Amino acid sequence: MSGEVLGSIFNQNGYSTAKMRAVWADENRLKVVCQVETALAYAMARAGNIPEDAYEQIKLRLVPENFDLTQLRLEAARSGHFLAGFVSYSQRLFDDDSGQYVHYGATSEDIEDTCYVMQLKQANEVIHNYLTKFGSVLYELTRKYKKTLTAAMAHRTYAAPSTLGFKLAIHLNELDYLMRRLKEVGEFTFAGSLAGVEGLSTMLGDHYEQVEADFCQELDLSTPEMYWHTQRERFTEYCNVLTMISQLLGKLGRNLLVMNQTQVGEFRETYAKGRQGSTVIPTVEEPYMCEAIVNLATIIRNEMPLMYDTMQVTGEKDTTVWRDIYVVLPEMTMYLSGQLNYATVVLSKGYFDTQRMSKNFELDDGTMYSGAIMMALGKHIGRQNAHELLVRLRVESDVKGVLLKDLYYSDKEIAKYLSKGELDDIMSPGNILPHAVGKTDKILRLYRQRHSDEIE
Amino acid sequence: MSGEVLGSIFNQNGYSTAKMRAVWADENRLKVVCQVETALAYAMARAGNIPEDAYEQIKLRLVPENFDLTQLRLEAARSGHFLAGFVSYSQRLFDDDSGQYVHYGATSEDIEDTCYVMQLKQANEVIHNYLTKFGSVLYELTRKYKKTLTAAMAHRTYAAPSTLGFKLAIHLNELDYLMRRLKEVGEFTFAGSLAGVEGLSTMLGDHYEQVEADFCQELDLSTPEMYWHTQRERFTEYCNVLTMISQLLGKLGRNLLVMNQTQVGEFRETYAKGRQGSTVIPTVEEPYMCEAIVNLATIIRNEMPLMYDTMQVTGEKDTTVWRDIYVVLPEMTMYLSGQLNYATVVLSKGYFDTQRMSKNFELDDGTMYSGAIMMALGKHIGRQNAHELLVRLRVESDVKGVLLKDLYYSDKEIAKYLSKGELDDIMSPGNILPHAVGKTDKILRLYRQRHSDEIE
Amino acid sequence: MSGEVLGSIFNQNGYSTAKMRAVWADENRLKVVCQVETALAYAMARAGNIPEDAYEQIKLRLVPENFDLTQLRLEAARSGHFLAGFVSYSQRLFDDDSGQYVHYGATSEDIEDTCYVMQLKQANEVIHNYLTKFGSVLYELTRKYKKTLTAAMAHRTYAAPSTLGFKLAIHLNELDYLMRRLKEVGEFTFAGSLAGVEGLSTMLGDHYEQVEADFCQELDLSTPEMYWHTQRERFTEYCNVLTMISQLLGKLGRNLLVMNQTQVGEFRETYAKGRQGSTVIPTVEEPYMCEAIVNLATIIRNEMPLMYDTMQVTGEKDTTVWRDIYVVLPEMTMYLSGQLNYATVVLSKGYFDTQRMSKNFELDDGTMYSGAIMMALGKHIGRQNAHELLVRLRVESDVKGVLLKDLYYSDKEIAKYLSKGELDDIMSPGNILPHAVGKTDKILRLYRQRHSDEIE
Amino acid sequence: MSGEVLGSIFNQNGYSTAKMRAVWADENRLKVVCQVETALAYAMARAGNIPEDAYEQIKLRLVPENFDLTQLRLEAARSGHFLAGFVSYSQRLFDDDSGQYVHYGATSEDIEDTCYVMQLKQANEVIHNYLTKFGSVLYELTRKYKKTLTAAMAHRTYAAPSTLGFKLAIHLNELDYLMRRLKEVGEFTFAGSLAGVEGLSTMLGDHYEQVEADFCQELDLSTPEMYWHTQRERFTEYCNVLTMISQLLGKLGRNLLVMNQTQVGEFRETYAKGRQGSTVIPTVEEPYMCEAIVNLATIIRNEMPLMYDTMQVTGEKDTTVWRDIYVVLPEMTMYLSGQLNYATVVLSKGYFDTQRMSKNFELDDGTMYSGAIMMALGKHIGRQNAHELLVRLRVESDVKGVLLKDLYYSDKEIAKYLSKGELDDIMSPGNILPHAVGKTDKILRLYRQRHSDEIE
Repeated sequence: MSGEVLGSIFNQNGYSTAKMRAVWADENRLKVVCQVETALAYAMARAGNIPEDAYEQIKLRLVPENFDLTQLRLEAARSGHFLAGFVSYSQRLFDDDSGQYVHYGATSEDIEDTCYVMQLKQANEVIHNYLTKFGSVLYELTRKYKKTLTAAMAHRTYAAPSTLGFKLAIHLNELDYLMRRLKEVGEFTFAGSLAGVEGLSTMLGDHYEQVEADFCQELDLSTPEMYWHTQRERFTEYCNVLTMISQLLGKLGRNLLVMNQTQVGEFRETYAKGRQGSTVIPTVEEPYMCEAIVNLATIIRNEMPLMYDTMQVTGEKDTTVWRDIYVVLPEMTMYLSGQLNYATVVLSKGYFDTQRMSKNFELDDGTMYSGAIMMALGKHIGRQNAHELLVRLRVESDVKGVLLKDLYYSDKEIAKYLSKGELDDIMSPGNILPHAVGKTDKILRLYRQRHSDEIE
Repeated sequence: MSGEVLGSIFNQNGYSTAKMRAVWADENRLKVVCQVETALAYAMARAGNIPEDAYEQIKLRLVPENFDLTQLRLEAARSGHFLAGFVSYSQRLFDDDSGQYVHYGATSEDIEDTCYVMQLKQANEVIHNYLTKFGSVLYELTRKYKKTLTAAMAHRTYAAPSTLGFKLAIHLNELDYLMRRLKEVGEFTFAGSLAGVEGLSTMLGDHYEQVEADFCQELDLSTPEMYWHTQRERFTEYCNVLTMISQLLGKLGRNLLVMNQTQVGEFRETYAKGRQGSTVIPTVEEPYMCEAIVNLATIIRNEMPLMYDTMQVTGEKDTTVWRDIYVVLPEMTMYLSGQLNYATVVLSKGYFDTQRMSKNFELDDGTMYSGAIMMALGKHIGRQNAHELLVRLRVESDVKGVLLKDLYYSDKEIAKYLSKGELDDIMSPGNILPHAVGKTDKILRLYRQRHSDEIE
Repeated sequence: MSGEVLGSIFNQNGYSTAKMRAVWADENRLKVVCQVETALAYAMARAGNIPEDAYEQIKLRLVPENFDLTQLRLEAARSGHFLAGFVSYSQRLFDDDSGQYVHYGATSEDIEDTCYVMQLKQANEVIHNYLTKFGSVLYELTRKYKKTLTAAMAHRTYAAPSTLGFKLAIHLNELDYLMRRLKEVGEFTFAGSLAGVEGLSTMLGDHYEQVEADFCQELDLSTPEMYWHTQRERFTEYCNVLTMISQLLGKLGRNLLVMNQTQVGEFRETYAKGRQGSTVIPTVEEPYMCEAIVNLATIIRNEMPLMYDTMQVTGEKDTTVWRDIYVVLPEMTMYLSGQLNYATVVLSKGYFDTQRMSKNFELDDGTMYSGAIMMALGKHIGRQNAHELLVRLRVESDVKGVLLKDLYYSDKEIAKYLSKGELDDIMSPGNILPHAVGKTDKILRLYRQRHSDEIE
Repeated sequence: MSGEVLGSIFNQNGYSTAKMRAVWADENRLKVVCQVETALAYAMARAGNIPEDAYEQIKLRLVPENFDLTQLRLEAARSGHFLAGFVSYSQRLFDDDSGQYVHYGATSEDIEDTCYVMQLKQANEVIHNYLTKFGSVLYELTRKYKKTLTAAMAHRTYAAPSTLGFKLAIHLNELDYLMRRLKEVGEFTFAGSLAGVEGLSTMLGDHYEQVEADFCQELDLSTPEMYWHTQRERFTEYCNVLTMISQLLGKLGRNLLVMNQTQVGEFRETYAKGRQGSTVIPTVEEPYMCEAIVNLATIIRNEMPLMYDTMQVTGEKDTTVWRDIYVVLPEMTMYLSGQLNYATVVLSKGYFDTQRMSKNFELDDGTMYSGAIMMALGKHIGRQNAHELLVRLRVESDVKGVLLKDLYYSDKEIAKYLSKGELDDIMSPGNILPHAVGKTDKILRLYRQRHSDEIE
């Protein structure tokens, strides 16, 4: 047992989900290695490069159940190389010489790379499902709150009226794009590899292109255009998309945390029965999950430098940089699973306090409408002149301690052009609703069109 | 004058090119701001939201020549905000009230974002041209050396015969992909922005969608699907592609550095007349440009964490993270310009010493053929048995200090199955040429097809 | 002119100060190179390795005024190496053969490294002065607000009563430590270098140890224990301290931003006359400087990976990693100058709204005292039992929508052990003042003792 | 089971050691939590804040053996907070009400922080032991090879004669410094924490300063000057030292990899019986451990950004950044354990081929002495003139294909001042030995003095 957060039974659920951990567990790794070596035998037999019988035996016996993990670990340790240990261990599984055809014609990195791709593809399935679920929850909230007024925030201060739904819609629209990118990049990333140590496929024997194609097809992977042990952008680009998704979630988390503050009180995580916020402040309910979402965005993006490092392969084989992906692929997908899980729970169970939102809306001193007033005044005195007039009122408000909104009504210059009724009208927040609803509806429609099978 | 490497006259050419620096220079920034504000006036006038005359005046007078940079700087400093300073400064350029229609209906971030996109698009042109040039040089060398034998290196040691051309081809094929990605991502990235502080386009007045579309079209930018001040994946994804390109160059640089070592001597930078390697070792010629290529790959990728940070916008405006792109976009594109320039010079002027390569090839003790021998022996005694036999010879060679290759010929077990002639045949490096040439030609053909207009 | 933020006249003051830019400007670099080469001549003449006359001539003529920067740039470009260009350019400054003794016995890196150390030491002076000023302002505010009640925040929610002064004191105490570290690490970092390309001092001639010692002393630098061209922890460790300082400022900035939020309103940046917050929301006053402080913390820490990279020198000279410091040292110190400047301005000019703070304090529903109530109740029924009781009240409060504080008074179990008067007493925030004042005073005293000459 | 590299039984030994994993394992965490809570009870009882009996019971029963990990995990999961789960679980261990005094007066973060410090201190012990062992091996090799000639490398090319021992000595001298820094920073880092959620120690009751002091002393930790939940430089600075150590190892690894190249052949990893280099190149022996050392340097330094992030605590409790250390502390120390283990094995078991080194030395074309010749010639014609003369010979050598060394002897200008005998003398590599030995001995002596108890 190791005690890093993903390995600790006390911590791992705060950073990942069991479903994703299962993808990267040693048991599954072994299963995938067996599958990949078997697919190799399949393709080689099909090309007539190894006996059909050998393939049949390999298919039958090269299965995880036949391996003792502890023994396999020892064998791998002795040979100093997992694949070498695996191949020599597997010899004992056969009664005849079929074991001699295990790993036949392949280089370790072909198997290693293909296995990582296989597991990454499985991880991608898990992520896709989580994204679908998260998207559905976000979609529904966007729809629900599209008319709920709240303040747009500029640099932490009130800027203009907006709606909660539109704010969520912007997140949804970003998710929409990133989900499409994930699909596209996956098509490129999920390719097999069978080209030998130097990429010339010299060890595979005859029909080597067909062998690689059959091998990939058997594993439901695409056939790469070219040898890619030294072209690692496949992984980098995929991870970049995952990282962008995690930043989107982090952004959501940051905004929820602002809403969670005691002084704001517009959102709170719902506490399940028995959950506690603190050992020392018994009555507090703290937004731990929102904080975790933000933190995981930081942790995930911090993996990316390794994904650039991994691209600088010296020569044809180079574990000074290849090892980076052995670290990153499991970690990044696990962390993202945890983040997506939390984000979905927080949104679907959490509570938006629209009453408080409405009350907070009133904290505006008139600033949220100063832009609209400028435009209205501008028609009479020019936009820039109106701007200067309003800046003057701002100063006046600060110096005299008078509410800005009151100055709008009392200022003589304004009064020349705008009546009280007109000011009232400019300052009615409902003005923005048609815009907000229209834009939100567009985002909802696009999301529905593009991810119809993904809305639950 | 500031002395960071891009600002120092002694250093900047080692990190960038003049062409790219011109894109980001204050003079060009001012020009772009004028263009963007003018496009706004154009679109607003077209929609009838401002007088046609005002647009004509703005078009005429809002030009860089009319600005005094030092005065503008002071105005911006006073107002604490560049755009505020710009708008108020520009008032003095007009005889009538047309100045009041400058920046009419826009929020600063619409202008800022659109300006950055404009400059980034210009930077993209420069990069595209450099890539085209670099690709042409690489293409030509790949073609030229496709039959030049050299050792594939596994973990810094000889692994198998390959060709210099194929090694370069793998770089070319990666470039091929990344150039296509750059084109694709550019289509997404280069969009304008005109949606207001909160994204609801409330200040633009009537026909706001048309106004935004006209504004973008006038600037030759695409119209975005939605408000994106808080959706920053546009920039992140673009920079990720640039960063991957820089890693590809870094990989090339690292491999050239290995070839540059005194003990290897397969490549050297050509020294122009007057260039010196050292003040203290007068006769040395050191591969400074190759080193710079590697270093710039590190520096460039080190910008990416800021591009993830920039995605986590709190509220609708947030310079805690927006400022990241003000730093990164100029720096990353400038650094990449310098790196591409060096990479092109190094490849086009540098010298591949194929004679030395040929001599170095002979340093192999037989290991480069141990895989092929294993496969040949394997047909008789099984692959894994052959592997074990060869490992035994390795140990014997080390212990007894006998050349491995000699043991191949003297070993009695091998002799049972492989004659001297067969061993000679297995160990002729020319065997790999059909594979190498075939794969290299495929890469050349694909590159030509996909980048026909880009081969010089 | 280059347009990255530090080079742009529109942006540079938002990221640095003129005083720090002057340290790294080309003009100062040239001056420092002249000083260092002159010190070399001094030490060599003293050891009798070059003629005393040559040193006198060098001292007289190797001065910045004698160089034409543009010509020097060309000479450096031609030779492809700044120092080579400098040495050959400098030949023309002499009537006799004294020029032949310029750079005599030195390797370029000795000069380069020593120059960077010289400039870094100058930068350190600037930073030290800024820190002193910042520390004084922070000290004064800490003292001033040590009794001003405000809520401690746990995970963005109210946790317990505290004081504004104590919160600031914690920042001051961290500053106290980091200022001491900066002094210590500077003593290690600011060493000269004169050991030759391979570190064996073979070119210096006789008395090479004395020559290095004289050289360093002349420049007011310490003499290093050993050759350090390949030992770069000097720079890394120094930059780590700067980065920690910038994180401290970032922390302060983040906390001020929370206080700045419209819904909180406990702090605001004071706007100088003429300063504007927005072109589109004329009356808004946004905390741009606080945001910049946070952003600069991110930008500065993002430089650190290069400082680790720079430690992995291959061989004795290696610009693949040395170049990292050419980028980082100027940038990091410039960014920090800007950050310190903003932090000092924000604190010294900004406004803490203690009235609003006091009002916000009342937003607590009783949670801030739940810990104290638990301890009081715990004396009667056990701490854990009391904890459970209070968790029950929390749930009751949420479900029934009753104010938690009211439940404290109405709960029958509590009433068994705590009278209304006792509850009133527990919930009087003044209870914490002796603790807060005592701890704050201790911090103030320690700061005063340790930085007596640094309090203005 | 989780499959990230530290959790996988197939991978973990390639990235860490069992000894270090034990420090961070859940079992040890639980043990440390018990110790820390017991120390709290001890200090509180001593101050009379809880009954002496309660402490005795806690000491007796709050031990890991009494916990069922799976049950504890469930309890922690239910309460959503490890410490909350721990405290409520521990109630069942007591017959009387002593359980009510578990965690009495503490806030969770006091316990969490102190536990992390405790584990980090244990990790520090392990690292210290590994460093001592590594230092001893490096010391011995430095001593052994101090006279073994080899080329100093400038930018991957031969620069000057040096010795293998001196090169290793430079590493040893850097280690010397970093080991001293580790000791110093540890004294600062390893402090306990007992100050409450807001730092005012209000829950601890009477004599709170004494309670904290007793608590820390009981755990053999230092007492902190002040509340540090929001001052995280303790961890950052410690991790910076670890990271610098890992870069030193990475530098060593990179240099060994150069020596490992087939074309260089000056170093190789010794392969234990049964260890294999490749499944596909049976006779290859690749330097996997050297590569791993380099890779771990990259992975470790990539953790540091989180350590800067962790310093920006918002409010008094903030898991958006606190969680960073939960990830980094276990990972960084585990990775470093693996790296130190490999570095020690590689150096102590690996083979330096001094014969090949000697042969490679001869690859120099005369460049290694061009500096010395310049200095000798300089005495007659001036240093800069000599430099120019030698640059001319370099060009001549390249153009005519004549060996540079031969030109030294045949050049008429040189012949005027330097006889063949003098040239022979200048070009005898033995010249540098007194310098190399002197400097190496100094380093050895200092290391011995400073780490006398650490040399095995």
